[in-house]
Amino acid sequence: MGSDSDLPVMQEAAGILKILEVPYEVTIVSAHRTPERMVAYGREARERGLKVIIAGAGGAAHLPGMVASLTPLPVIGVPVKSRQMNGLDSLLSIVQMPGGIPVATVAINGARNAGLLAARILALGDEALMDRLDRWIHQQTDQVLKKAQALETMGVEAFLEGRQEQ
Amino acid sequence: MGSDSDLPVMQEAAGILKILEVPYEVTIVSAHRTPERMVAYGREARERGLKVIIAGAGGAAHLPGMVASLTPLPVIGVPVKSRQMNGLDSLLSIVQMPGGIPVATVAINGARNAGLLAARILALGDEALMDRLDRWIHQQTDQVLKKAQALETMGVEAFLEGRQEQ
Amino acid sequence: MGSDSDLPVMQEAAGILKILEVPYEVTIVSAHRTPERMVAYGREARERGLKVIIAGAGGAAHLPGMVASLTPLPVIGVPVKSRQMNGLDSLLSIVQMPGGIPVATVAINGARNAGLLAARILALGDEALMDRLDRWIHQQTDQVLKKAQALETMGVEAFLEGRQEQ
Amino acid sequence: MGSDSDLPVMQEAAGILKILEVPYEVTIVSAHRTPERMVAYGREARERGLKVIIAGAGGAAHLPGMVASLTPLPVIGVPVKSRQMNGLDSLLSIVQMPGGIPVATVAINGARNAGLLAARILALGDEALMDRLDRWIHQQTDQVLKKAQALETMGVEAFLEGRQEQ
Amino acid sequence: MGSDSDLPVMQEAAGILKILEVPYEVTIVSAHRTPERMVAYGREARERGLKVIIAGAGGAAHLPGMVASLTPLPVIGVPVKSRQMNGLDSLLSIVQMPGGIPVATVAINGARNAGLLAARILALGDEALMDRLDRWIHQQTDQVLKKAQALETMGVEAFLEGRQEQ
Amino acid sequence: MGSDSDLPVMQEAAGILKILEVPYEVTIVSAHRTPERMVAYGREARERGLKVIIAGAGGAAHLPGMVASLTPLPVIGVPVKSRQMNGLDSLLSIVQMPGGIPVATVAINGARNAGLLAARILALGDEALMDRLDRWIHQQTDQVLKKAQALETMGVEAFLEGRQEQ
Amino acid sequence: MGSDSDLPVMQEAAGILKILEVPYEVTIVSAHRTPERMVAYGREARERGLKVIIAGAGGAAHLPGMVASLTPLPVIGVPVKSRQMNGLDSLLSIVQMPGGIPVATVAINGARNAGLLAARILALGDEALMDRLDRWIHQQTDQVLKKAQALETMGVEAFLEGRQEQ
Amino acid sequence: MGSDSDLPVMQEAAGILKILEVPYEVTIVSAHRTPERMVAYGREARERGLKVIIAGAGGAAHLPGMVASLTPLPVIGVPVKSRQMNGLDSLLSIVQMPGGIPVATVAINGARNAGLLAARILALGDEALMDRLDRWIHQQTDQVLKKAQALETMGVEAFLEGRQEQ
Repeated sequence: MGSDSDLPVMQEAAGILKILEVPYEVTIVSAHRTPERMVAYGREARERGLKVIIAGAGGAAHLPGMVASLTPLPVIGVPVKSRQMNGLDSLLSIVQMPGGIPVATVAINGARNAGLLAARILALGDEALMDRLDRWIHQQTDQVLKKAQALETMGVEAFLEGRQEQ
Repeated sequence: MGSDSDLPVMQEAAGILKILEVPYEVTIVSAHRTPERMVAYGREARERGLKVIIAGAGGAAHLPGMVASLTPLPVIGVPVKSRQMNGLDSLLSIVQMPGGIPVATVAINGARNAGLLAARILALGDEALMDRLDRWIHQQTDQVLKKAQALETMGVEAFLEGRQEQ
Repeated sequence: MGSDSDLPVMQEAAGILKILEVPYEVTIVSAHRTPERMVAYGREARERGLKVIIAGAGGAAHLPGMVASLTPLPVIGVPVKSRQMNGLDSLLSIVQMPGGIPVATVAINGARNAGLLAARILALGDEALMDRLDRWIHQQTDQVLKKAQALETMGVEAFLEGRQEQ
Repeated sequence: MGSDSDLPVMQEAAGILKILEVPYEVTIVSAHRTPERMVAYGREARERGLKVIIAGAGGAAHLPGMVASLTPLPVIGVPVKSRQMNGLDSLLSIVQMPGGIPVATVAINGARNAGLLAARILALGDEALMDRLDRWIHQQTDQVLKKAQALETMGVEAFLEGRQEQ
Repeated sequence: MGSDSDLPVMQEAAGILKILEVPYEVTIVSAHRTPERMVAYGREARERGLKVIIAGAGGAAHLPGMVASLTPLPVIGVPVKSRQMNGLDSLLSIVQMPGGIPVATVAINGARNAGLLAARILALGDEALMDRLDRWIHQQTDQVLKKAQALETMGVEAFLEGRQEQ
Repeated sequence: MGSDSDLPVMQEAAGILKILEVPYEVTIVSAHRTPERMVAYGREARERGLKVIIAGAGGAAHLPGMVASLTPLPVIGVPVKSRQMNGLDSLLSIVQMPGGIPVATVAINGARNAGLLAARILALGDEALMDRLDRWIHQQTDQVLKKAQALETMGVEAFLEGRQEQ
Repeated sequence: MGSDSDLPVMQEAAGILKILEVPYEVTIVSAHRTPERMVAYGREARERGLKVIIAGAGGAAHLPGMVASLTPLPVIGVPVKSRQMNGLDSLLSIVQMPGGIPVATVAINGARNAGLLAARILALGDEALMDRLDRWIHQQTDQVLKKAQALETMGVEAFLEGRQEQ
Repeated sequence: MGSDSDLPVMQEAAGILKILEVPYEVTIVSAHRTPERMVAYGREARERGLKVIIAGAGGAAHLPGMVASLTPLPVIGVPVKSRQMNGLDSLLSIVQMPGGIPVATVAINGARNAGLLAARILALGDEALMDRLDRWIHQQTDQVLKKAQALETMGVEAFLEGRQEQ
């Protein structure tokens, strides 16, 4: 990520990778405050054995696109919500990349989906991970089905009360 | 893609995959006009041996997100520019996915980058493709360097004239 | 609705339907987490005797449009306000449907109006409901007239104090 | 519609209603230039036997909402694309109605969907119309399937050539 | 104003008119809930001796434009900030009027400026009001000059402390 | 107006004032290129006998607000459509004035309405102008009624053909 | 700055200039409430020995552009976040200046960067300032490197706890 | 500039610098296609004797901000209008820089103002340039005054005809 202020958002990517047992590293690489570190990080990523890079930044968010220009690995960009523009600036700075340098952009503050996208990519070459991912997706579906059943059984008022108590 | 009207944009994805010698199939799957076909396409994609799905659509663009909900494969979304809103509707309909279902979104009309992103993902498990991708990236860099040199040598006016003649 | 987090907004639709004595069911059908359930729900809606479907969702909101593609019944879409984009993403994802599949879209968080729109549609074939709807509209008008009279009689300061006390 | 300049857009609603054999009338009622005519039109609509009203307008588009305040019939609003703001002003002026007065809003310039939505509503009380609507939807699906097959058989280049020749 | 919920904003117009000793009336006229009352109010305004009408509304704000269509008097529109769209919907619904029916639009929540604009208009035919307006403008200028002097004398920190204490 | 490039838009204000027999002057006063001229123009306007000022400008449009700060006369602002932002920049630069300095803003490129608003203001103190304004408004209403009748008599196709022939 | 309400934002410019030992003055010059003072301030700035002017304002923010039209010195504009439009109005009012009058615009509420930009400009003619600026930039880089190291050593949870304790 | 496609816009910066006799160099440095060249260009700029850098780019425009992170010289950013988003993406990617790294942003496609801003900065240390700049500004003022006089003398119609003939 570009700044430690992005960590509360970006830790959700780490969280889902942990659940899916995908090894990862977390660090701070600022496009603007440590440009040489960024160049080194991007250029060495493949040799160091990294497979996918998740880069999150806010405002005039240059980190994801710059890293994508420094490595042929897939780079996932997370637009971090900015205080002034609600993240529209972050989103456009990341997704509107010129032809030739792709960044796989997820929703504003969508760090969890960035982790899941990395897992989908890595699972192409890792059957065991694909199984864990499948199981996670089924659990997610089951949760919705349970909630739907609870709502239908309990009715709206009782369901809402139950939600508040949690 | 969701409609044959998206083909002029989406064929750029096919174009770059051809250059990089990545096999691909092109078809029309409409989320709204052929929903069962979409469900079947998404559910069978992995078994049929597909690795990455590129889905392009415009306006209230539901295809990429719906396909991502039907397969654990990585899905790349291309927001196709719409006539009324310049593609802002397409972009937000694709990128703002809820937690749990990631779509790797590229720029509005960014089909070429969608193809390149697919190639980056596939190259993780295919050394020869990684080599071809590396070569393509270097060619791209060389083109810019040549243009920079031409501009510096020729000056602005002569360079612009040369561009128009092409 | 697409998620139980939409319930605090969507219950307003249920509330007005209750007042107007229109029978309804409330459940959770996630376009992205339970796509097959959504297909079944949409395809079976008419046979089950449903007349109008109100679908609310936020962010990249695909539920209303997808349900509309699965049934010939009128579908009303409620864009639920999203945390990052104030519901502009929800609105555009729902209202900008391609030609062929209409969704009757109401305001962001406009669940009450969704209920009223459903009542207007159903009242076309139900004189008693039309009467109840007429009465409700007149009550609404009367309330405004009473407030106008109170404001004119009391003056601005006293009226505002009276409002705060309530 | 609010002005004869909206007719090129709004005639698509008439077109689809004709195909579906739904009787309709087309006229101009300007909220701003003929307000009393609008009030009379809205107030008399039900007695005159109208079932659904489609109102299209652009810019600060007040016609759909005002008509909805004058009748308990369902009102469908079509935001007509404006020259200066691409229809964003039309869309927000129509869809963001306050609680109590619903307008069923379709996409910018989405007059065809307005006609289809009216047909869905009317078909609730008209089995024969429901059958025609079902047939129309199936034809639409078949067209997409045929195009998908053509594209898969012919390949991208030949298909695009074929499109241009039409 | 269109609703008593607009009163906390709109009372600022009343406040400045009181300071400038301009007589005024305040009432609620809902375009959507009391359309006939609105028509009567607009049509009778000139005969009743009104000179300028200030109309405030939020969301799909139709009141200012509709009143302007019902009277040849100058109508000032105040876009009231809406909860979902920060008043962008209110602003566009009021300012983007079609040719023929002008609304003098002020800033979002700019009720005080609406009062001042009304005073500027009325002062064209009322020398004494023009004098009071001139005096008010000079007081406003003096306040800024005093603050500028205080800031220059006290320095930034002391000035900010002084502000908080007030 | 701020630049002669605004004249094609702004001449519509002159056109309607001519029709309504309101005397006017047209000139160029650039806030940014001739600031002293602007100050002199604003400060002398009242003494010179001007009653209402219409100021049109595009982009970062400062002329209307600056003139309003230099005179107690009512100032009408016309946001001229800009090439890059479709006039959103012009609109916000004019309408979002701080408390104390009102600008009566009309639609983007709404110069004709600016002229009509000026006429409404001047008619408060000029019975003959009020009569001409009334007559103009009735003509406008009649035109719509005639078009409505023509459309109902001729039908959609014939009416559209007739429009194209004009 | 245009109003003392902008001071909490604008003092960050003063703060960084103090750190870099750049002399500065802070005052209030309102484009709209004290236009003659603004003209005098702009016209006399060069003679008084000022080198760079930082102007901050919100809403329809005319101060930076107007000052730039009154002096040939470089003018830096700070769009101050507005309550209604999150500063989009401030940004467009400042950055979209017509050809001929440049304003060096920084981010919304970016007063610190305005101070740093002034320092970069002044350092072109002041070696000692350039050294202090270089040192400040290096400190900034070191801070990021230290945080990166801390995060890598401590892990995400411990690092986040440490942040909260500060 | 980041690409030779930006040259038609960016040459206006060169044009004004030529008129003001400010020496300059023009080249292509792509943040994404030649990142190492960009780092070298930025890091060596001061030693090579450059004083001000004008960087133009479109879409997810990272060049201005990245160059600003590589040099303590003042960097002026020109958002080049993009095809899909009218330059809003370019503007936000350039202007919304995080604290610490300022970019002096001008209007979308505002390359001429970028040149003028550079001249203003350089004129601080170059009396002769300040004189040329003063003269240029006066010429610009004179042009407006002449046009104002012509318009007042000729009237609107004759003036517009004269413009078209040019």
